[in-house]
Amino acid sequence: MDERVREHAAVLVDWSARVEEGDNVVLSVGPEAHELAVAVAEKLGERGANLLATYRSGEVTRAYLRAHDDDFDRNPDHELALLEAADVFLSLGGGRNTSATADVPGETRRDYRSARSEIREARYDTRWVSTVHPTRSLAQQANMAYEEYREFAYDAILRDWESLAEEMDRLKTRLDDGSEVRLVSGETDLTMRIDDRTAVNSAASVAYDSHNLPSGEVFTAPYATDGEVVFDVPMTLRGEAVRNVRLEFDDGEVVDYDADQGASVIGEILETDAGARRLGELGIGMNRGIDRYTDNILFDEKMGETVHLALGRAYDANHPDGESGNDSAVHVDMITDVSEDSRLEIDGDVIQRNGRFRWEDGFDE
Amino acid sequence: MDERVREHAAVLVDWSARVEEGDNVVLSVGPEAHELAVAVAEKLGERGANLLATYRSGEVTRAYLRAHDDDFDRNPDHELALLEAADVFLSLGGGRNTSATADVPGETRRDYRSARSEIREARYDTRWVSTVHPTRSLAQQANMAYEEYREFAYDAILRDWESLAEEMDRLKTRLDDGSEVRLVSGETDLTMRIDDRTAVNSAASVAYDSHNLPSGEVFTAPYATDGEVVFDVPMTLRGEAVRNVRLEFDDGEVVDYDADQGASVIGEILETDAGARRLGELGIGMNRGIDRYTDNILFDEKMGETVHLALGRAYDANHPDGESGNDSAVHVDMITDVSEDSRLEIDGDVIQRNGRFRWEDGFDE
Repeated sequence: MDERVREHAAVLVDWSARVEEGDNVVLSVGPEAHELAVAVAEKLGERGANLLATYRSGEVTRAYLRAHDDDFDRNPDHELALLEAADVFLSLGGGRNTSATADVPGETRRDYRSARSEIREARYDTRWVSTVHPTRSLAQQANMAYEEYREFAYDAILRDWESLAEEMDRLKTRLDDGSEVRLVSGETDLTMRIDDRTAVNSAASVAYDSHNLPSGEVFTAPYATDGEVVFDVPMTLRGEAVRNVRLEFDDGEVVDYDADQGASVIGEILETDAGARRLGELGIGMNRGIDRYTDNILFDEKMGETVHLALGRAYDANHPDGESGNDSAVHVDMITDVSEDSRLEIDGDVIQRNGRFRWEDGFDE
Repeated sequence: MDERVREHAAVLVDWSARVEEGDNVVLSVGPEAHELAVAVAEKLGERGANLLATYRSGEVTRAYLRAHDDDFDRNPDHELALLEAADVFLSLGGGRNTSATADVPGETRRDYRSARSEIREARYDTRWVSTVHPTRSLAQQANMAYEEYREFAYDAILRDWESLAEEMDRLKTRLDDGSEVRLVSGETDLTMRIDDRTAVNSAASVAYDSHNLPSGEVFTAPYATDGEVVFDVPMTLRGEAVRNVRLEFDDGEVVDYDADQGASVIGEILETDAGARRLGELGIGMNRGIDRYTDNILFDEKMGETVHLALGRAYDANHPDGESGNDSAVHVDMITDVSEDSRLEIDGDVIQRNGRFRWEDGFDE
C-alpha cells in the first residue's frame, strides 16, 4: 500500500475526527475507496474504536431509486438507530463514475432526500468527516492522469494542519473583529457587512467545526452586499459549464447577472427562492497544497489565493447561538482568483493583496 | 448486466427473504459482489423496502483485527441498534481472496466473535439469507475457470425452488415419522436414532427456516450413532486437505478415526470438547444443479446424491421447542457420495438407493 494512503487515514482518524477508544464509528466506503478503508480500519483498530462499515455506491443508489415508486418511508428505523448510536461518521468517497446517478429524476432525489431529514440530522450530530480517495474517475473529472491526480490530492490532504489552523486563526480573528469586507479584483468591487458574524476556521477537523478533508478555508456569512463580482474560475454547475459569471448586488440582493457561458443556469439558481438571490457565504481559500482548479468544489474552494461566495443558505455556525442566517434550498459556491491585481480589505485595512496575507513574506504594504 | 444476476437477485429477495413493502433491509456487500448488490437494490426498490448497505471486506476486517489489542467492546451499540431494527439481513459474499483473513490469529477471531454474540443473535432474529456472487476468487478455490464457475453457481442458485421444496418435503415427512436411519455405502454402515427430531426442509427460503442460497438439503439431528462411516468427498478443513476420513461410532460417540490424508485435523476437531465427538447433523443433499465438488461446503453439502454428517453442534430447529441438542464449539460437515452402491433406509424401508429416491424414476425397488 502507498504510504500516503496510510498517512491520509491517520490524518482522517486522528486530526479530523479525533477518534478515541470506545467510539462507535460508521465508516462509509465508496466502491473504489477500498484501499483507504483498509488503512482507516487499521487506524480504528489501533485506537480501539468500534467499526461498522457501510457501502455507498452511486450505482446501487441509482438502481434502488429508479425502481422505487418515490413514496419513500420517512427515516427508516434501522438506519436512524445506527446513526443515533454513532459517535463518528467517516465518509470515504470514491466510485468509478462521478455521473453514476445522472439519470435519476430530480424529483426522486428530492423526495428521497426529504424523507431522510432525521437521518441526516443524526449524522450531523456525530463527529462527521467527508473525504475522498483519489480514484480514476476523479482524475478524469479533473482532466488529469491518475498518478498526477494522486499527487495533487495528497498535496491537498497531507498538510501540516496544525500550523495551517494557526495561520487561519489570524484571519478568523480579523473577520470576527471586523464589520465590513471589501473585495477588489479586476472588474470585481464588492462590499459586504459581517458585524456580529463569527468566522469558521475550517481546518479539516471536528475540533474546528470543520468536516471536510481536505479543507483550508476561513468562511463567514456576509450580508448587505453591494457592488459587482466576477467569478473567473471555470466550473460545472448542474451539469453545465459556466464561465465568468458576473453578479451585481444592491442592498444584499442580486439585481443583475450575466455570464460568458452558462447564464441560464445562474438564472435558474437565482429563481429558486428569495434566499437564492442573497449570499450565504464568503470563504477565503488558504490551502496552498491545492495548486489548480479541478472542477471539484471540495478542492477548488479551498485553494490558496482564491475567494468564493455562495448564493443561498448560510451556515448556523457563523451566527450567534440559536440564530440562523440566510435561508434557501440552494447553496451554490462560485470562485474568483485573487492571486493578482487584487486586494481584500477589512474595515479599510488591506488584509490580503495579490494573494499574500499581511503576515506573509512578500506582502506589499 | 448478465440476466442471471437479476434472476439471482429476484430469487434472493422474493423467494428466499420474502421481502415486503416497508421492510428495513440490511444489505451486506462483499467488495466483488457489487453487481449483485446493484441488482438486489433494484428489486428492493421495486418492493418498496428500505435499504441500508453495509460493506463486508475480509481485508478491512483483517486490518482492523490485527491492529486491535483484542480487548473488544461487547456488542457495540450502533451495530446492535441497526440489527435490532432490521427486518431482513441479506449477505452477498464475494471478495478477491478467500484467504484474506488467513493471518489473523485464531485467538483474536475468537475474542472478536465472542464479543459480538448479541449482534449475531439480533442478525439471526431477522429474515437473514446468505448468498455468494460468483467471483474469480471462488472460481479459483473451485479450481475452475471464471465463466465455468459462473455456469456452475447459477445452475445451483437458479432452481425451481418451489418444486424442489415440494420434493424435499416428501423426505422431511419420512424423517419426521421415522425412528432410525441406516446409511450403507461402500465401507460405510451407520445407524442413527432420530425419534422426536424434526427435519428441516432447507429450500433456500426463510419460509422454510432455511437461510442459504443456494440450498437444497433436508437435515435432522441424529443421536445414538453406531457403526462406521467413510467420507469420500475431498475437502479442506482448517486449511488442510482431508481425504477419506473414517469414523467409528459406538453409542453416539466417535471411538476411532483415521484418514488417508489430514487425520491430525480430525484429531484436533475431536479433541475440542465432548460434543465434538458426537453428531450434530445428518443432511441429505438434493440440489441436482450442483454437479461437482468445489471445496466450498455451502455448495458441496447441498449436492444431489450426497449425504453429509456434522461433528459437533446441533441446530435447535431439529428439536422440540425450547430444547437443544448436542452442544459443541464446532460444527464440521463431511460428505459422502451415495450415487452408487449405496442405500439410505428409514426404519428398514429403503428411501434412496444409488442416489435415486423411491419417488423418482429409476428407483430400483
